[in-house]
Amino acid sequence: MAEKIRGVFAPHIVPLDGRGEIDEAELRRYIDWMIDRGVHGLYPNGSTGEFIRFTPQERRRIIQIVCQQAAGRVPVLAGAAEANVRETLEACEVYAGYGARAVAIVSPFYYKLSPESVYAYFREIALHSPIDVTLYNIPMFASPIDVPTIRRLAEFERVVGIKDSSGDLAFMMRMIAAVRPVRPDFAFLTGWDAVMVPMLLIGCDGGTHATSGVVPELTRKLFDLTQAGQIEAAMKLQYRLLELFDAMLYSADFPEGFRAAMETRDLKPGASRQPLSESQKIDRAALARVLQCILADFGYVDTPPEGCPARTGNIVQDRVSQIAASVIQALREKGAI
Amino acid sequence: MAEKIRGVFAPHIVPLDGRGEIDEAELRRYIDWMIDRGVHGLYPNGSTGEFIRFTPQERRRIIQIVCQQAAGRVPVLAGAAEANVRETLEACEVYAGYGARAVAIVSPFYYKLSPESVYAYFREIALHSPIDVTLYNIPMFASPIDVPTIRRLAEFERVVGIKDSSGDLAFMMRMIAAVRPVRPDFAFLTGWDAVMVPMLLIGCDGGTHATSGVVPELTRKLFDLTQAGQIEAAMKLQYRLLELFDAMLYSADFPEGFRAAMETRDLKPGASRQPLSESQKIDRAALARVLQCILADFGYVDTPPEGCPARTGNIVQDRVSQIAASVIQALREKGAI
Amino acid sequence: MAEKIRGVFAPHIVPLDGRGEIDEAELRRYIDWMIDRGVHGLYPNGSTGEFIRFTPQERRRIIQIVCQQAAGRVPVLAGAAEANVRETLEACEVYAGYGARAVAIVSPFYYKLSPESVYAYFREIALHSPIDVTLYNIPMFASPIDVPTIRRLAEFERVVGIKDSSGDLAFMMRMIAAVRPVRPDFAFLTGWDAVMVPMLLIGCDGGTHATSGVVPELTRKLFDLTQAGQIEAAMKLQYRLLELFDAMLYSADFPEGFRAAMETRDLKPGASRQPLSESQKIDRAALARVLQCILADFGYVDTPPEGCPARTGNIVQDRVSQIAASVIQALREKGAI
Amino acid sequence: MAEKIRGVFAPHIVPLDGRGEIDEAELRRYIDWMIDRGVHGLYPNGSTGEFIRFTPQERRRIIQIVCQQAAGRVPVLAGAAEANVRETLEACEVYAGYGARAVAIVSPFYYKLSPESVYAYFREIALHSPIDVTLYNIPMFASPIDVPTIRRLAEFERVVGIKDSSGDLAFMMRMIAAVRPVRPDFAFLTGWDAVMVPMLLIGCDGGTHATSGVVPELTRKLFDLTQAGQIEAAMKLQYRLLELFDAMLYSADFPEGFRAAMETRDLKPGASRQPLSESQKIDRAALARVLQCILADFGYVDTPPEGCPARTGNIVQDRVSQIAASVIQALREKGAI
Repeated sequence: MAEKIRGVFAPHIVPLDGRGEIDEAELRRYIDWMIDRGVHGLYPNGSTGEFIRFTPQERRRIIQIVCQQAAGRVPVLAGAAEANVRETLEACEVYAGYGARAVAIVSPFYYKLSPESVYAYFREIALHSPIDVTLYNIPMFASPIDVPTIRRLAEFERVVGIKDSSGDLAFMMRMIAAVRPVRPDFAFLTGWDAVMVPMLLIGCDGGTHATSGVVPELTRKLFDLTQAGQIEAAMKLQYRLLELFDAMLYSADFPEGFRAAMETRDLKPGASRQPLSESQKIDRAALARVLQCILADFGYVDTPPEGCPARTGNIVQDRVSQIAASVIQALREKGAI
Repeated sequence: MAEKIRGVFAPHIVPLDGRGEIDEAELRRYIDWMIDRGVHGLYPNGSTGEFIRFTPQERRRIIQIVCQQAAGRVPVLAGAAEANVRETLEACEVYAGYGARAVAIVSPFYYKLSPESVYAYFREIALHSPIDVTLYNIPMFASPIDVPTIRRLAEFERVVGIKDSSGDLAFMMRMIAAVRPVRPDFAFLTGWDAVMVPMLLIGCDGGTHATSGVVPELTRKLFDLTQAGQIEAAMKLQYRLLELFDAMLYSADFPEGFRAAMETRDLKPGASRQPLSESQKIDRAALARVLQCILADFGYVDTPPEGCPARTGNIVQDRVSQIAASVIQALREKGAI
Repeated sequence: MAEKIRGVFAPHIVPLDGRGEIDEAELRRYIDWMIDRGVHGLYPNGSTGEFIRFTPQERRRIIQIVCQQAAGRVPVLAGAAEANVRETLEACEVYAGYGARAVAIVSPFYYKLSPESVYAYFREIALHSPIDVTLYNIPMFASPIDVPTIRRLAEFERVVGIKDSSGDLAFMMRMIAAVRPVRPDFAFLTGWDAVMVPMLLIGCDGGTHATSGVVPELTRKLFDLTQAGQIEAAMKLQYRLLELFDAMLYSADFPEGFRAAMETRDLKPGASRQPLSESQKIDRAALARVLQCILADFGYVDTPPEGCPARTGNIVQDRVSQIAASVIQALREKGAI
Repeated sequence: MAEKIRGVFAPHIVPLDGRGEIDEAELRRYIDWMIDRGVHGLYPNGSTGEFIRFTPQERRRIIQIVCQQAAGRVPVLAGAAEANVRETLEACEVYAGYGARAVAIVSPFYYKLSPESVYAYFREIALHSPIDVTLYNIPMFASPIDVPTIRRLAEFERVVGIKDSSGDLAFMMRMIAAVRPVRPDFAFLTGWDAVMVPMLLIGCDGGTHATSGVVPELTRKLFDLTQAGQIEAAMKLQYRLLELFDAMLYSADFPEGFRAAMETRDLKPGASRQPLSESQKIDRAALARVLQCILADFGYVDTPPEGCPARTGNIVQDRVSQIAASVIQALREKGAI
C-alpha cells in the first residue's frame, strides 16, 4: 500500500505570460522555488490553480510540467476534475502516467447536487480510477460532501483521503471520527490556512494551503512546530499567518490577492485570465504594497520605499494608508515637501 | 438593428445514446418536436442543457446541430460560456458562423466573483463579440449579476438582453426600471417557470423555461393568453404549470426530473452523464409515473396502467402512492388479488 | 362565520414622545389619518410596529388604543405574539375583549424551529384561542412556516389566514394551491410591498404592507385598480411603489426608513427605541430629503427647498446628490454663491 | 478592577414544574449540582436558558434565585437582554443588586441589524450600565457582531468580554488579535462546545457551553487538561464531547436535547414551554435512551435495561436501533421471545 499522504501541499497558481499562455519556464522555476522552501508536495489544478479557467488540454499540460519538474522530489496531487466521469477518468489515466501520487477531485460544481448524487459520482470514479483518489470538499464553491457520504466513499480502497476547505473544525472532527477507525490510512487535509495549527491538533495529516504558494517556509514551519509539540510557538505564527491570509483572501476576488503577494517575492504569476476593471487595478496596486509590508515583517521581502504605516487589520483602510504614505514619499522624492 | 428577442425559448436537454454520446438523430427529432409545438426559439447549452457536462468540442457540435436543424424557423440563443474570455469569444465567433441569433453567457461560476469582476468579465466579451450577447443570471449556480452591473453592461450595444433565473419579481422589476428607459430594445427573459405569467405581466419580453422542453404547447399557451390579456385563464394554467415544474424540479437533482418527464412524451433523452445511485434509480421510476399522471391531466399522454392516485403536492408522498398503486395493479394482473 | 379578511391592512409604527413613551394622542391621530386615506384595516404590533421593542404591558396598551380609535370603522388585526403559548393566549383573550377582528401571530423567533415545532406551537394556540388567528410568516426574521405546515394548520377552524412576508410568489401560489380547495374562507395576505399587484393577481386577498403606513392612498389605489382589472395602470403604480419601498427598506435598518418617510407627511413618529449612531443620524437626514422627493412626485408632499436632483435608484448615491443640492441651496440663501 | 472572567460557565436550563412555572426548589438543587461538579460560573437567561420564553418578571426571578443560591461560591453572568435599551438597563441595575458578576447581553435579535446599529445599541448600554457587560454574539439567532464593532465596543471600560457562539475559530482569532493588545483584561469565551479545546488553545479564556449543564465534570476536565498542557488527553475527550454535543444539538430543536440528557442524570427540567407534537414526543423518548448510552460510556449514568447497540454517529439511525433494542427487551421480559 502506498504511503499515507501527509504534510504541507502547495495548491499553486500557474504563471501566465504576456499573451495569457502558460509560462512554462516560470512555472518550473516556481516549482523549484516552493520545493526549495520546504513544501512536502504540490497540488496543481486546484481552486488556487484556477483549474476552471484553463482548457482540458492546458490542464493536462500543467500536470505534465509539474510532475516532470517535481521529478520525484515531492509527491504531486493532481487536480483531475473534468466535464464528466468519463473525461475525469481519462485524466486520471493520463496523470497516473505522468507519475502523480494521486488525483484530487472536487465535488461536482455548478449544480448543487444532493449527497446521493455526490456519492454516485465519486463511486464511479473510485471503481475505475487507475490512481489513488483524494476527495476535495469546498462547499463555498461546489456541492458539499457530508459526513455520511465521506464514510460511504471511504469504503473504496482507491479513495485515500479528503481535502476539506470548509474551515469548520467540528466538521473535520466528525469526518475523522467516522472514517479513521475503519481506515487508519485515510488522509485528512485541511485547506483553510486560517486554522492550520488547530486542524493539525485535532488530528489532520496535513494541509493544502494557498499560502504555501506564497510563504512555503512559513506553512512548513507551522507544520514542523506543531509536530514537535511546540504549540505556543506554532500558535503565535498561526496568528501572523491569519493576518496574511485574510489580507490576500478578502482584499480581492480569489485568488488575485495571492497573485499580488507572489509578485512581492519576485515570482511572475502574470495577469489572470479573469480581467480586472480599472478600479480593481488601482486597488490591487495598493494591496500589493500592504502585502509587501506584511511579508517584510517576516523578513521575506524588503519594506516598500515609502515605509509601512501601522496596520489596522482592516484591509480597505490599510490600503488607503499605504497609498497615502506612497504619495507622500513620491512628493518627498521630488522635493515637493 | 436586429429585432428584439421575445417569446418562449426552450432551454433543452441534449439526448444521449447508450454510450453516453450525443444522439444526433434524436436531438434533431427533438428540435422539430419543440418547434412544431410552438416554441419561439431554442436555447441549447444552458443549465437545463447540462453544458458543463460536455467538452468544449461537444458544446460546439450541439450548437451546430441545433442551428442546422432549426434552419431559420426559429432563432437560436446559443449558450457560449467557456473556460475564459478568450475561449468564450472564440465560441461566439463560431456560433455567429452557425447562424445563432445571439449567444447567452452565464456569469462566471465556481468562484463567487464580486460585481466588479462580473462587470470586467462581461465588458471584455461585449467589446469583442461578433454576435449579440445576452447575459445569464442564475444566482443559485453562478456569481450574481446585480442591478448596478446590469445597468453598466447595458451601455454596450452588443449586450441585448438578460435571462434571469432567480425567480425574484422585485429584482426583475428593478432591472427593468434601471435599463428599459435607456435601452428599450433590451430583452428581459425570465427563467423561472413557476412565475412565468406574473413575470410577463410586470413587463418581461419572454422566458427561457425548462418546462418548454417538456410541454412546449403549454408554455406557449401561457405566453399567448397573457399577451391577449386573458389573465385569469393564463393564471389558471400557471398554477398547473407550477405543479408540474415543482414535481420535476424538487423530485430529483436538476435536470433529472425534466429528463424523466421527456420520456413520458416518447422522447429519448437517454441516461445523464451524472450517474444515479441505486436508490435514485428507484425514485426516478416512481417519479416518472407521477409525472405521467400530471401530464395525462393535460391530455398530453395516457394515464399509466395502474391509474393515478390523488396527488397531494408532496412529491415524496405522491411517489409512494404511485408505487403502491402500481404494485396493486401488478398483483391484480397476476390474479393474486 | 365571520367575513373573510380582505384588502389593504396597515402594519403601522407606534409614535413615541420625547421620553420614548407611547404618544397616545399622535397614535390616535395617525390611525384616523390612515383610515381617512382608505386603509381597509389596521395591523398594530407587527414587525413594522416594532412589537419586540415594547413591553408586554405596552403591547396591550397599543392594541387597546388602536381598537378604541378604529371604533369599528375598520377591522384590527392585533399582533399577539408573547413569550410563550400561555402568554400569547392571554393576549388573545384580552384582544378579543378589545374588539380586534383577529390576532396575527408570528412564527416562533430567535430559535430557528423545525416545521414540527412550528406546527405544535400554532396547534396549541389554534385549539385554545378565543379569537380568530392569522399566521404570520416572515422567514427573514422568524422560523419559516412551510407549505405542509400551513396545510395542517388550516384544518383548525380558528386559523383563518396567513400573512406572508417572504415576497416569494411561487411560495404563495403553493400555499394557495394547498389550502384554498379545502378552506375557501382562508385569507392569503402578502406583506411584500414590492410585488403587491402580482400577488393580488395570483389570488391573494389583500396585503399588510408597511408602505400603507406612509402612503395609504397609494396602496389602496393599487388594490382598487387591480380589483377593477386595470392591470396596466396598477402595474405602473407598482413600479413607483417599488422605488419608494426600496428607498425606505434598504436605506436604513428596518423600519427606520418608514419612520423618516412618515415625518415628511407631517406625522410625528418620534425617535425609535433602537438608538442611532452619529453617522446614522446624518444618513437619515439625507434619506428624509430623498424620500420627500419621491413623495413629492406623487403630489403627497412639497419638494424640499433645494429641489430634487435626478434619482438613480441607488439610494446611497441619491443621498449624496441630495446633500450636495442642499448645501448649494444653503450657500445660495446666504448669498455665498 | 474586577478580575477577568475565566473558566467554564454553565448556560443552564431553568427547571419547570407540572404547571409550567419555574421550579424553584429544583433550580436551586440544580445550581448546587453544577457547582459541586466543578463549573467556574453560571450563566442563566442565555439561549440554553430559553430566556425568550419567560416574561420579564420571570427573568428577574431566575437571576435572583441563581445569585442567591450561588451565594458567592461562583460568579454569575446574568443574561439581561430586554425589549429595549431602557428595559435592559433596568435589568442591569437589578442584577447588580443581586450580586451578579456581570451581565451578558445578546446582540439585538428578530430584526437583522447593521453593524452600526449593533454598535449604537451596545454603546448606550456600555455608557449607562452600573455593572460589567459581556457581549453575546450568536449569529445563527441574532444580529452578528463583527470584528470592527467588537473593537469599537472594547473602548468602553464597562464592556469586559464577549461570548461567541459562532464556533468559527478564525473569527475568534480575529477578535482576539484586534482587542487583546489594547484590552488585555477583555475576556473571550466560546459558546461552541464542539471546539472547546481548540478555542482554548488559540487563547480563549473559557467558555459557556450548554453541555456544562449536563456534564459539568467533563467540560471542567477538558478545561483543566488544556490548561495543564495535556493536549492529547484533552483532545481525546473533546472528540467524545463532540459526540454528545451533536446528539443533543441535532436530534431535536434546541435546547430540547439538553433537557432530555438532564433527565438521564436525575435532574428534573420538566416540559419546555415550547410544546412538542406527538411525533416529537416519540422521538424524544428514543433520543433519551441514546443519550443515556453515551453518558453511560462516561460512567455518569447506568446503561438502559435494553443495553446499548453500537452507535453510528447518525442520530436518527441510532434512535431507531435503540427503539428496536428496547422493544426486544420488553418482549423478552414478558417471555414473548
